[in-house]
Amino acid sequence: MRVGILGGGQLGWMTVMEGKRMGFKFSVLDHDPESPASKVADRWFPPERVEDFIKASEVITYEFEHIPQEVLEKVYDLTIPSVNLLELKRSRIREKEFYRKEGYPTPDFIISSGDRLSEDIKTFGFPCVVKAEKLGYDGKGQYRVFYSEDVDYILKNHHSEEKFLVERLVDFNFEFSLIGVRDSRGNRKIYPLTVNYHEGGILLYNSTRALQIKEAEEILLSLMENLNLVGLIAVEFFYTWDGKVLINEMAPRPHNTGHYSLDGCYTSQFENLLRAVCGLPLGSTRLKAPSGMVNILGLSLEDISLQELLSVDGSKLYWYGKSKKPRRKMGHINITATTEQELEEKIERLLNLIYSHEPS
Amino acid sequence: MRVGILGGGQLGWMTVMEGKRMGFKFSVLDHDPESPASKVADRWFPPERVEDFIKASEVITYEFEHIPQEVLEKVYDLTIPSVNLLELKRSRIREKEFYRKEGYPTPDFIISSGDRLSEDIKTFGFPCVVKAEKLGYDGKGQYRVFYSEDVDYILKNHHSEEKFLVERLVDFNFEFSLIGVRDSRGNRKIYPLTVNYHEGGILLYNSTRALQIKEAEEILLSLMENLNLVGLIAVEFFYTWDGKVLINEMAPRPHNTGHYSLDGCYTSQFENLLRAVCGLPLGSTRLKAPSGMVNILGLSLEDISLQELLSVDGSKLYWYGKSKKPRRKMGHINITATTEQELEEKIERLLNLIYSHEPS
Repeated sequence: MRVGILGGGQLGWMTVMEGKRMGFKFSVLDHDPESPASKVADRWFPPERVEDFIKASEVITYEFEHIPQEVLEKVYDLTIPSVNLLELKRSRIREKEFYRKEGYPTPDFIISSGDRLSEDIKTFGFPCVVKAEKLGYDGKGQYRVFYSEDVDYILKNHHSEEKFLVERLVDFNFEFSLIGVRDSRGNRKIYPLTVNYHEGGILLYNSTRALQIKEAEEILLSLMENLNLVGLIAVEFFYTWDGKVLINEMAPRPHNTGHYSLDGCYTSQFENLLRAVCGLPLGSTRLKAPSGMVNILGLSLEDISLQELLSVDGSKLYWYGKSKKPRRKMGHINITATTEQELEEKIERLLNLIYSHEPS
Repeated sequence: MRVGILGGGQLGWMTVMEGKRMGFKFSVLDHDPESPASKVADRWFPPERVEDFIKASEVITYEFEHIPQEVLEKVYDLTIPSVNLLELKRSRIREKEFYRKEGYPTPDFIISSGDRLSEDIKTFGFPCVVKAEKLGYDGKGQYRVFYSEDVDYILKNHHSEEKFLVERLVDFNFEFSLIGVRDSRGNRKIYPLTVNYHEGGILLYNSTRALQIKEAEEILLSLMENLNLVGLIAVEFFYTWDGKVLINEMAPRPHNTGHYSLDGCYTSQFENLLRAVCGLPLGSTRLKAPSGMVNILGLSLEDISLQELLSVDGSKLYWYGKSKKPRRKMGHINITATTEQELEEKIERLLNLIYSHEPS
């Protein structure tokens, strides 16, 4: 099977590695030949060679949502999941309006723009979260607003005509995510629930929990049907103090909160994406053992001690080979344990080992 | 870490893939740039460029025993496990004499040569196994001898001055193997026992068994010390009907009977080899779930049905990308299950799916 991947980041890198193991051949479309996935793929193409990329691929998938429109138009026919799903993700406003229209629970929101933002927020009420409409991931273009003065800071970074989503700040009990996979015959499987911990809008760590939240599973199954998805979908939820389940956001691709599946599950999210888009039977999403993941943010291999990290029983290092930038996702550690309690202790230990080395 | 690997086969391929995940860089020395490991390594060198291969490597290890003497002499200083261990493996006679000298149990044997073989076997007794001294793996150069006439067949394939090992044919209850890993500080870990099924001298499948054979573990631990091993050692044993443990052979490298560890254990044999030779702490060899492996011998991707194989819950395909030859190891499937009984049923199903497609 010859698979094309739009985007060369670590999600593509893990997809390529899982597929190469099975004898698949990969092409990656990315402007950077040194991106993680570009380096391990059989062929790399820059965006201006999208026609050659298409010729090299029997099927195309994506690991990144923010793909230029002109590329999406060209790859449309070969791409799974459907390019249409990315339309929803091109605008945070469109995504939220979709949830409202279809009756999926999500934090209350209004739509605003730079010139009306101060006024709209005063009416909507504090505290709230203001999100720029476009190009947002890993907390980019997101602001928590507690006082009127916070709005001035936002407006310094954006044009007055820009559109914003203004959401109620949810005081949640915990954040969790579910990842689902669906094939072209409509078969669906759900990965175990993970509880997630973000810091400044970036996932820091997560771990599986023997916890079934029926309402969230039903939302996920319904979303897969509703979107006629073939491939993966990850949905991040808030679980509020009064027991409500609210969708924070979704992504129709492999997801950082599913990295643990490489070591924790019978079939990883990456392999199941490939199985789904290549028309192969979906693999079991069952858990072998409680497992989790700790992101390594903004640190190089020289900043961490492999001696210490690998001495944590059951830790597996994934290193993406990217150049270091503050808070950038440089790698992660998957961790497996016998019990959930042991798992939490190991995650705590890994966090201490990784981040106590950070220059203060 | 820049690691050099002597040999480009599938053992090297899996070692490279496990190490690349951790950010290691690999060079492979092999005459074939299209060998499995050559294709995934960062750099490939043919044997005549061994000096450049050495310059590119901080540490060197091997995935194959039959490395030319002139190469071994040049890589000696950088190579872990010690090149001295390969001396034992260059001659089946030397290996067996080592076991006898050190008091390790092994099937009874004599040493013979082409011109004396018929006579020696008559004295030693039938049935026996005759093994050519050199270059033997996967059943090559091995013959079961039940009658005097069988010797004539052997002598057609070998020179009269060639040396042979003549072993008692052991009527064993089962074959099993243990894989151990030892670091330079003398820390040792043992992988779970697997029961192995060979066909015509080639491993067909194996699976973990919750069975501890203390005597075999002690032999393995003693061997690691005795050989002052840093790295992996795999020992294949016979378990006789009267409860004796006999060493069949050993290999100081990753082993086909340890492939399951990629999906079944906290740390794979390949990662632990890299950890040992790079001076990193050894990883846990514990089992996540009962698991096993089925070799795909002499078949291409077109000869098997991925649809069927991947529909077996918990199966993971490893495809080496080699050209097809009769009985050649082309790939394998790792399989994980909840119980040993479920595991055996799945292996049975995989064997039927793979080999019922073989042209008769």
